[in-house]
Amino acid sequence: MSATTQLPNDLKAQRDAFHEELKAMSITPLWLNLATAAQNEPKVDAVPHIWRWRDIKPMMLRGGDLISPQEAERRVLMLINPSFEAKSARTVGMIFGGIQFLMPGEIADSHRHSPNAQRFIIEGEGSYTAVEGERTIMKKGDFVTTPAWRWHDHGNESDQPMAWLDGLDLPFANLLDANFFEDYVEGDGQMQPIYRQEGDSIHRWGRGMRPAWQEPIEPRQSPVLNYRWTDCRDNLHALREEEGSPFDGIIMAYVNPLNGGPTLPTISAYLQLLRKGEHTRSHRHTSSTIYHVAEGGGGTLVGDTEYLWEEGDTFVIPSWVEHEHWSDGGEAVLFSYTDRPILNAFGFYREAAGDRRA
Amino acid sequence: MSATTQLPNDLKAQRDAFHEELKAMSITPLWLNLATAAQNEPKVDAVPHIWRWRDIKPMMLRGGDLISPQEAERRVLMLINPSFEAKSARTVGMIFGGIQFLMPGEIADSHRHSPNAQRFIIEGEGSYTAVEGERTIMKKGDFVTTPAWRWHDHGNESDQPMAWLDGLDLPFANLLDANFFEDYVEGDGQMQPIYRQEGDSIHRWGRGMRPAWQEPIEPRQSPVLNYRWTDCRDNLHALREEEGSPFDGIIMAYVNPLNGGPTLPTISAYLQLLRKGEHTRSHRHTSSTIYHVAEGGGGTLVGDTEYLWEEGDTFVIPSWVEHEHWSDGGEAVLFSYTDRPILNAFGFYREAAGDRRA
Amino acid sequence: MSATTQLPNDLKAQRDAFHEELKAMSITPLWLNLATAAQNEPKVDAVPHIWRWRDIKPMMLRGGDLISPQEAERRVLMLINPSFEAKSARTVGMIFGGIQFLMPGEIADSHRHSPNAQRFIIEGEGSYTAVEGERTIMKKGDFVTTPAWRWHDHGNESDQPMAWLDGLDLPFANLLDANFFEDYVEGDGQMQPIYRQEGDSIHRWGRGMRPAWQEPIEPRQSPVLNYRWTDCRDNLHALREEEGSPFDGIIMAYVNPLNGGPTLPTISAYLQLLRKGEHTRSHRHTSSTIYHVAEGGGGTLVGDTEYLWEEGDTFVIPSWVEHEHWSDGGEAVLFSYTDRPILNAFGFYREAAGDRRA
Amino acid sequence: MSATTQLPNDLKAQRDAFHEELKAMSITPLWLNLATAAQNEPKVDAVPHIWRWRDIKPMMLRGGDLISPQEAERRVLMLINPSFEAKSARTVGMIFGGIQFLMPGEIADSHRHSPNAQRFIIEGEGSYTAVEGERTIMKKGDFVTTPAWRWHDHGNESDQPMAWLDGLDLPFANLLDANFFEDYVEGDGQMQPIYRQEGDSIHRWGRGMRPAWQEPIEPRQSPVLNYRWTDCRDNLHALREEEGSPFDGIIMAYVNPLNGGPTLPTISAYLQLLRKGEHTRSHRHTSSTIYHVAEGGGGTLVGDTEYLWEEGDTFVIPSWVEHEHWSDGGEAVLFSYTDRPILNAFGFYREAAGDRRA
Repeated sequence: MSATTQLPNDLKAQRDAFHEELKAMSITPLWLNLATAAQNEPKVDAVPHIWRWRDIKPMMLRGGDLISPQEAERRVLMLINPSFEAKSARTVGMIFGGIQFLMPGEIADSHRHSPNAQRFIIEGEGSYTAVEGERTIMKKGDFVTTPAWRWHDHGNESDQPMAWLDGLDLPFANLLDANFFEDYVEGDGQMQPIYRQEGDSIHRWGRGMRPAWQEPIEPRQSPVLNYRWTDCRDNLHALREEEGSPFDGIIMAYVNPLNGGPTLPTISAYLQLLRKGEHTRSHRHTSSTIYHVAEGGGGTLVGDTEYLWEEGDTFVIPSWVEHEHWSDGGEAVLFSYTDRPILNAFGFYREAAGDRRA
Repeated sequence: MSATTQLPNDLKAQRDAFHEELKAMSITPLWLNLATAAQNEPKVDAVPHIWRWRDIKPMMLRGGDLISPQEAERRVLMLINPSFEAKSARTVGMIFGGIQFLMPGEIADSHRHSPNAQRFIIEGEGSYTAVEGERTIMKKGDFVTTPAWRWHDHGNESDQPMAWLDGLDLPFANLLDANFFEDYVEGDGQMQPIYRQEGDSIHRWGRGMRPAWQEPIEPRQSPVLNYRWTDCRDNLHALREEEGSPFDGIIMAYVNPLNGGPTLPTISAYLQLLRKGEHTRSHRHTSSTIYHVAEGGGGTLVGDTEYLWEEGDTFVIPSWVEHEHWSDGGEAVLFSYTDRPILNAFGFYREAAGDRRA
Repeated sequence: MSATTQLPNDLKAQRDAFHEELKAMSITPLWLNLATAAQNEPKVDAVPHIWRWRDIKPMMLRGGDLISPQEAERRVLMLINPSFEAKSARTVGMIFGGIQFLMPGEIADSHRHSPNAQRFIIEGEGSYTAVEGERTIMKKGDFVTTPAWRWHDHGNESDQPMAWLDGLDLPFANLLDANFFEDYVEGDGQMQPIYRQEGDSIHRWGRGMRPAWQEPIEPRQSPVLNYRWTDCRDNLHALREEEGSPFDGIIMAYVNPLNGGPTLPTISAYLQLLRKGEHTRSHRHTSSTIYHVAEGGGGTLVGDTEYLWEEGDTFVIPSWVEHEHWSDGGEAVLFSYTDRPILNAFGFYREAAGDRRA
Repeated sequence: MSATTQLPNDLKAQRDAFHEELKAMSITPLWLNLATAAQNEPKVDAVPHIWRWRDIKPMMLRGGDLISPQEAERRVLMLINPSFEAKSARTVGMIFGGIQFLMPGEIADSHRHSPNAQRFIIEGEGSYTAVEGERTIMKKGDFVTTPAWRWHDHGNESDQPMAWLDGLDLPFANLLDANFFEDYVEGDGQMQPIYRQEGDSIHRWGRGMRPAWQEPIEPRQSPVLNYRWTDCRDNLHALREEEGSPFDGIIMAYVNPLNGGPTLPTISAYLQLLRKGEHTRSHRHTSSTIYHVAEGGGGTLVGDTEYLWEEGDTFVIPSWVEHEHWSDGGEAVLFSYTDRPILNAFGFYREAAGDRRA
């Protein structure tokens, strides 16, 4: 790209007039827009950010007093990247994160939408999510899928507030102009009928077998309703003697058993163990990540900023920002999810090791 | 979704205070954002628009006097949707369209970028595009591919201006924070070395065979450099006695011979014949389209607005807007391209027949 | 096809001479071979057959006295279809079944081969199979994979004889002229080194997650070493209230978690529950099946022959032979495997419902 | 594998008796069958062989006098590997080759079958093949596809005999017990109705585009009816300055435009140019090949046997036999086809460079 040198006044004036006329025609010359169109490296608008559980939790409880799930459709605190407007629904990259909570006795009515969704349980025990006729009682650390266009509802049948991290590809669906939504209107309009026993989907699809007489609804969506914390944590620990990833330690992806790929077509989710004293090597990549601290404490260096985190915190790392993680005072487990399947699908994923640590 | 009814002053005040505090935490309650997050149908910001060749061409010639390709990197008039800012590079949906032109003797220096690109030749004959060591001399109606991260340069060795419609997934690469760019710096920094004869890629990959000893660079990118107008127009006419698509007449997709899919991973391109007197049935879908009139004249009803078009014009139809086409006074051929592969990849593509015509 | 009518003697003689001369040239006229080349339906050479456990078991014990695993390479009783020669290794279709047994203290030395293999445990408990550095202690009903070209060895560390049904695509590898074999010669030449803990493969690949830093060796091979009987039986029973397949009852396929397909590239394996009083509808298909009775008793009508079976029996149904199953006196569980992936891969699979039962 | 040492008479007698009893049970001990079950390298029964056109052509003309296409179903001289019986239909590996010929005015009635078929034209001009409502007039060197279960008929409307090499996966369909056949009985029972113009399939699917409103019948089958000799030969010559394959010179695969793969699901076909003086390096692989000399002369060393060939000859190379080619006195073009897609589909393909030439 050429630097703009001093122009004769005359030429400059002509160009200005020309550009003005073009603007009126909804035309922009590329040469006025090279900074965003022909950039050596991505110019990333999103910024790193951390939302602390000790700040969110009181707001959540207050929100429980101030608005009902029926008024709110879902009682969700949307975590919006400081660089973006709320209507973008962008937490980072093409993904959204929000804190949803249900007070004892509350119901979040059944609906469905074209964006794909998942939940990671932060606190509480005894609420259910129902999808496709099956209910699962959720516990801390469980990972629950509610893929695109599946009816789903939640209810808190316990005596304690329950909170989870919602993950959706809502920003992507919005940017694609493909966001559809439908309220459930059968019966009482709140709950779908339950015609499968608890655990059905894991027996049917998730334990090494599949029914030979039945085709799955959509192979790109995991049919497993709940990836149980106890099972997943066991998997991590079974591999704890391995070297693992230099950038992430013992990190495992949740898998769609129908194709071995990510649990949602657009979102990969991970669980990762940072062992006592582990400090990973830095790297960067063109996927964007939302992290949630499932266990323990530690820190992450993102660009030049150090974020120290503890259980319940949620933080984001945008595309192409170098980062490294460490545990602090023991072991830590991070849950995370990324928009990497979107980048992978078209060859836009790039990754580079950082130079801060060997 | 529940309607908001009259609230007691007290509760309203508490809620307002609550929302204000959340805002300071980069948190937005979903219930304040339902209009964009939980919408029955896509809320599409882009608008339909037409850019007329009779308006653009004089500006193109004037631009030729005012700025050189070297100053401009590429001399492109970016067609920006009236709803969007220039830096978005969004013509419609996830795709970009721009008019690039080269005056006699000019060169557009070699570079490469992670966005995928294609060209449809509007006017002139005798310029070349070079990709991966092969040059093709371009003619009106030719469809030329320059996929992601391939070095490419253009030169006008004729005695007339030459113009083409650039098509890129630039908005998508930008939104994904995955836009990389590199200038060619070998040799004179302008032209890549040519080590293949003209027509190489079509013989090598595009005429029903492939070399058994060579793997393609990237199977998602068409290795065919130039889909010749004369061949493609022949294909259309060979099927002219068919009924074709009720919504589009005789419409054919350009195909990547490596996988039978679209020519670029993110963009499908089409050529379509509207026969004398043909008026298609209306429909709508979640892909966004850029149309360019390759031959003849006619009209398109987009939503409630009628666009009459003639050869050289370019117009856009956003996602989920109903539309129908007709030829006027003879036959017409439309070139078009869409972001449909992006929607298809994740299950976001929807289509519905319209109710305006049987 | 035309019937051959009475020919003039002269023409017949000329034809005979002509055919004789062709034969000497390694040429056969199609018209002398229409019965096998242009047949309305498959002419299947294989026949249905049953091998009864009460007959095999004494032979197995006798074999244990007469030959050592080291002399035999593997102490396997090959079940050869009565229509075929032993060297074909064809039990039915493209698959092989054999009874392998190890006496207390015996070892079957490590080797590898290009045919894919699996084991279904018939009797005993306490032997191991080792594959890729992991050992699994096998129990009755377990389903163990040893895919192509993986080193594997077995050892009986218990105080009882142990028997399993070997399943391989050996006939297919032989017919393809692609059968390679290699003996393990490192160390003592008997046992591969064990560097993974028991259960590693199930935690690593088989419980809904996969390590993000590791690529599987070959995605077409299941990396799960042992599909445990107790888990698999649970899966079946969890779906027992469903209607299931009209032809097979509650039938589930063992699944490769890397792609959702069969556990071996060439062989699909199934476990199937016939409930008390269940009698399936008849059908036929172009895949060939080896059945093994895992639990209970019942019968199968194959063509016109009724086979009554009990636990431990093994029987085969060739391609395109109509068949139906029933349980007798309670519930029954059948393990089975087929060459269907081979037929599916090229479009050769056909299935037709029978007319014997609604 | 252990060598069998001298056994005590007693043990030997017991073993013999044991083996005899097993035999009566349709059981063979693996230890008596290790030579075919556990072999270090494939034991290939098929042998290399050449059929010379100068021998076949007179037989073809004589056959034209002795039997009609209607009597013969198809007048085909089946080239049967000297190691196999005629009913196997095995020319080599899983593929069949036969010489089909039509005398002036003759018709080969319409039929269809589950085996996939292709034709390479040896001699003559002016016969047609009809598939799916389209006729193509065939010329020397054309490559014509008639995939599985498509109605097809041939007719010779010229005044000269016409001959082509039929290629089918008939042995594979037979071995899979999946060979179905059906005679056409509509109309006169001879010819299917023609409702597409000549060249339709190449315009519709084969020239870089596809109709957007139409799904292909079966993506694994090439929809292109005729790969023209003149086009294909041009492709080869366009790449003649390349180094090409060390083992095969300038070798190109015919391609299915729907998926970039082979033209039939089971058979890859190739055209290969051996330039003047070219002598390839030797190699071997687990696919089996039928070669046909399309132009010129030369030789092939197969194992230890040298085959000198000239235009019109057909020869075979079985799996895992080392071979190398050379042209003699000018350039040569070989057409060939292999069963490699079958081996590739399951991981059975292996290849090794030979040691005879650097």
